[in-house]
Amino acid sequence: MEIPLTQIAERVGGEVIGDEHTVITGIAPLTTATPSDLSFFIDKRYRKALQGCRAGALLTSGPMNEFEGPQVVVADPQLAYAKVAGLFAPPVRRYPGVSDQAFVHPESRMGGDVSIHPGVHIEAGAYIGEGCTLFPGVFIGERVKIGKRTLIYPNVTILRDCVVGNDVIIHPGTVIGSDGFGFVRDGEKSVKIPQNGQVLIEDEVEIGANNCIDRATLGRTWIKRGTKTDNLVQIAHNVIIGENTIIVAQVGISGSCTIGRGVIIGGQVGISDHMDVGDGAMIGSQSGIAKSIPAGEAVSGSPAISHRQWLKVSALTARLPQLQDRIKALERKIQVLESDGAKE
Amino acid sequence: MEIPLTQIAERVGGEVIGDEHTVITGIAPLTTATPSDLSFFIDKRYRKALQGCRAGALLTSGPMNEFEGPQVVVADPQLAYAKVAGLFAPPVRRYPGVSDQAFVHPESRMGGDVSIHPGVHIEAGAYIGEGCTLFPGVFIGERVKIGKRTLIYPNVTILRDCVVGNDVIIHPGTVIGSDGFGFVRDGEKSVKIPQNGQVLIEDEVEIGANNCIDRATLGRTWIKRGTKTDNLVQIAHNVIIGENTIIVAQVGISGSCTIGRGVIIGGQVGISDHMDVGDGAMIGSQSGIAKSIPAGEAVSGSPAISHRQWLKVSALTARLPQLQDRIKALERKIQVLESDGAKE
Amino acid sequence: MEIPLTQIAERVGGEVIGDEHTVITGIAPLTTATPSDLSFFIDKRYRKALQGCRAGALLTSGPMNEFEGPQVVVADPQLAYAKVAGLFAPPVRRYPGVSDQAFVHPESRMGGDVSIHPGVHIEAGAYIGEGCTLFPGVFIGERVKIGKRTLIYPNVTILRDCVVGNDVIIHPGTVIGSDGFGFVRDGEKSVKIPQNGQVLIEDEVEIGANNCIDRATLGRTWIKRGTKTDNLVQIAHNVIIGENTIIVAQVGISGSCTIGRGVIIGGQVGISDHMDVGDGAMIGSQSGIAKSIPAGEAVSGSPAISHRQWLKVSALTARLPQLQDRIKALERKIQVLESDGAKE
Repeated sequence: MEIPLTQIAERVGGEVIGDEHTVITGIAPLTTATPSDLSFFIDKRYRKALQGCRAGALLTSGPMNEFEGPQVVVADPQLAYAKVAGLFAPPVRRYPGVSDQAFVHPESRMGGDVSIHPGVHIEAGAYIGEGCTLFPGVFIGERVKIGKRTLIYPNVTILRDCVVGNDVIIHPGTVIGSDGFGFVRDGEKSVKIPQNGQVLIEDEVEIGANNCIDRATLGRTWIKRGTKTDNLVQIAHNVIIGENTIIVAQVGISGSCTIGRGVIIGGQVGISDHMDVGDGAMIGSQSGIAKSIPAGEAVSGSPAISHRQWLKVSALTARLPQLQDRIKALERKIQVLESDGAKE
Repeated sequence: MEIPLTQIAERVGGEVIGDEHTVITGIAPLTTATPSDLSFFIDKRYRKALQGCRAGALLTSGPMNEFEGPQVVVADPQLAYAKVAGLFAPPVRRYPGVSDQAFVHPESRMGGDVSIHPGVHIEAGAYIGEGCTLFPGVFIGERVKIGKRTLIYPNVTILRDCVVGNDVIIHPGTVIGSDGFGFVRDGEKSVKIPQNGQVLIEDEVEIGANNCIDRATLGRTWIKRGTKTDNLVQIAHNVIIGENTIIVAQVGISGSCTIGRGVIIGGQVGISDHMDVGDGAMIGSQSGIAKSIPAGEAVSGSPAISHRQWLKVSALTARLPQLQDRIKALERKIQVLESDGAKE
Repeated sequence: MEIPLTQIAERVGGEVIGDEHTVITGIAPLTTATPSDLSFFIDKRYRKALQGCRAGALLTSGPMNEFEGPQVVVADPQLAYAKVAGLFAPPVRRYPGVSDQAFVHPESRMGGDVSIHPGVHIEAGAYIGEGCTLFPGVFIGERVKIGKRTLIYPNVTILRDCVVGNDVIIHPGTVIGSDGFGFVRDGEKSVKIPQNGQVLIEDEVEIGANNCIDRATLGRTWIKRGTKTDNLVQIAHNVIIGENTIIVAQVGISGSCTIGRGVIIGGQVGISDHMDVGDGAMIGSQSGIAKSIPAGEAVSGSPAISHRQWLKVSALTARLPQLQDRIKALERKIQVLESDGAKE
């Protein structure tokens, strides 16, 4: 794909300094870019790399003297990068129409321009919105509703009655609508609590690979607009997650938690059941959350404390042997002082 | 589905107080129930919600004055709820018979009334018991035996020679019988130790979504009757898990561990290889187990200590900066006392 | 399968003591071996089991008096076991040729002697090397290249442009080439950073079940020769992992980390982004890595410190209540000394 620099500048609302007729065919980091690539200067630590850079043009927040070629100046070069890079990616493979090697229940319905690959399975009462792409091995259960332009990668399972919005991306191997983990003890035995609810995933959500999002016991497990999850995330029954929240890989959120909007949850965090995490809270990697977290707080540790306190605590924990030595020294000195006192 | 209250009372061994001819069509929490729903009073914290509750009837452990409609009084309302809720869930979708879009090896066998969806793959020598349901994307390897009425959700893989009992439920994406993680170093290289054993899953086990249960090196990895696992659980080769144990999401159990019966393992726990966890032990979330745990003990932390001790330790850990301050204060005072002593 | 002891001795470079015409049909531990089995003495803790052992022959590092039958003496009996055990495992099931129930894009290509099971999906531009085996539910995206003799278990997804080497094993449910988790904030919203790179997996790598290996933002995520991962491992975009590294279950490695060769990473470890882990480093289970680790170091804890220091620190942490008691005692004594001083 050949794209003139002017077109790139338009897409990102940037200003071209230098030859605006330069034609770009790819995007690459400073160190590996060739003369037909656009490169980008986002992280100031890489300033030295500008000098030897062979890129055909540079995306930057201000004109850089070290770079001799044309530059596209924007307010936020990382955001501009995000908007431009997609131009040079191959388009997502779409099967033309509905494959006759897919299983499509006659009582299901579809919007226009869907791409249903071979090996997809769509059950009775399901609805697949206009412009959706379903890859091989995708299972869509009874009465599932999928919005418009949603992209579902291979081997994803979406079980009965779940609802997925518009412009959602679901990466391979993810399971949506498995039973919540609910049992009652009857003597030694565990009696299953039927999980009758659903999962609701709103527009513009992106779900990573091999996630598990359980259906609610009653009502819904609910992931609101614009939230993104990384891979191998566990979201239990009746969890509610607010808008534009970020959940890093291998996080586990237990049943009936309410997570706010704009929250950032680091990798491998575990959250106990029935917790509230307020809007804009930040949870450090590997934290364990057993108390609710007010809006805007940053916490870390297991059990989690304020992030600032945790920095002190973990530094001190590593020095516990020295603290013990200081206690020992004090004990010796006290003994000396006491025996001195006794002598008098 | 319309169910008279008498029938519900019979199912749970309860007594009806009020109009036993009330007809129920669903089940819902106190706050959202409508006049045709059964609701339930399980958690005393929600007592206030009884007053405005519009439910047609109430499941409760004793007659509640705040609720005006008919009540079904039972010894354990949560257990009763578990037994009743299934009446109002849609039945599991069963493909009628064996789909001709499934791959069924001619040398495999099946019991009566099986439901084999399109896209299932069954290898030579496998046996699928009476009344089983296999969803699309399920792979059943050579000589695998599946018991009666077992339910296997989409995209589950069960590899050669594994055995699954009766009334088992396996949620989507789970892998049973992958090779145990065993290598021997030969210089820098890792030589694979062949994993020749199997996985045996007994009756009434329920396995969550995207679990991994590895086959034994020799002999069997063994999950006994009535045990339940949540999502994303890792069970390594040659692990034995006793009856009616509960394993919460994202737990990892290393090779050759023996876990007792009635054990409860919290989310994200890691257990080192060759550990014994005694019957009825309880392991707190995110714990790391590197010593065997006697029967009946409750432990927490990484490395784990008794849960009671861990509560004290984690409170003190968060106060380490204050402990350090107290040591500093002592050091200053000692210095004063010592210099006072020197002056004398 | 019947194998004479001489043939076994040849395979492992061992010496037979006793009747070399003994015929072996299986391999089993000391306690369960029957007279037609080979058993093995690897772990000295099991020496007592030699006496009652009924095995037809024994693999051992030196002749054992306690065992009466023929013995195969080798330098490293565990390595010898690894080389022999495969003889007694059933061969991997190979579909003869390319199933007409697989979807094979006409613009894909294949080497000789491939086994493509029903339900495999191969996209345009893909190449499957000689001798490969692809199980049902495997998805191979556009332009993916797979080397020779590679074994891909059911329901594995390999997305566009990824490259997998020779003699690789990929266990079920694993996802290779999902998008890296990269977003830029634009006000409250998260704008997706297109993930244009690939995943490169070199020869003799083994990837466990339900792993997630994300494609690079640009360039490649790269797993070098001979590295092995256990189940449920997360490898983020642009990670590079050196040769012959071992990664235990449920590890998460964040974006742009560089892991050396011969590294051992314990279960449930989390590694922050942009870390370097040097050759031969060892990381204890459940550690959290937020600082780079020099070659050859052993670390543990979260945040990780040297393993030796961590052993002391975690022992002391468990004794924090006693440390606090000692501080309290000191405070009381100081008070006494101070008041004694004041009296004088």
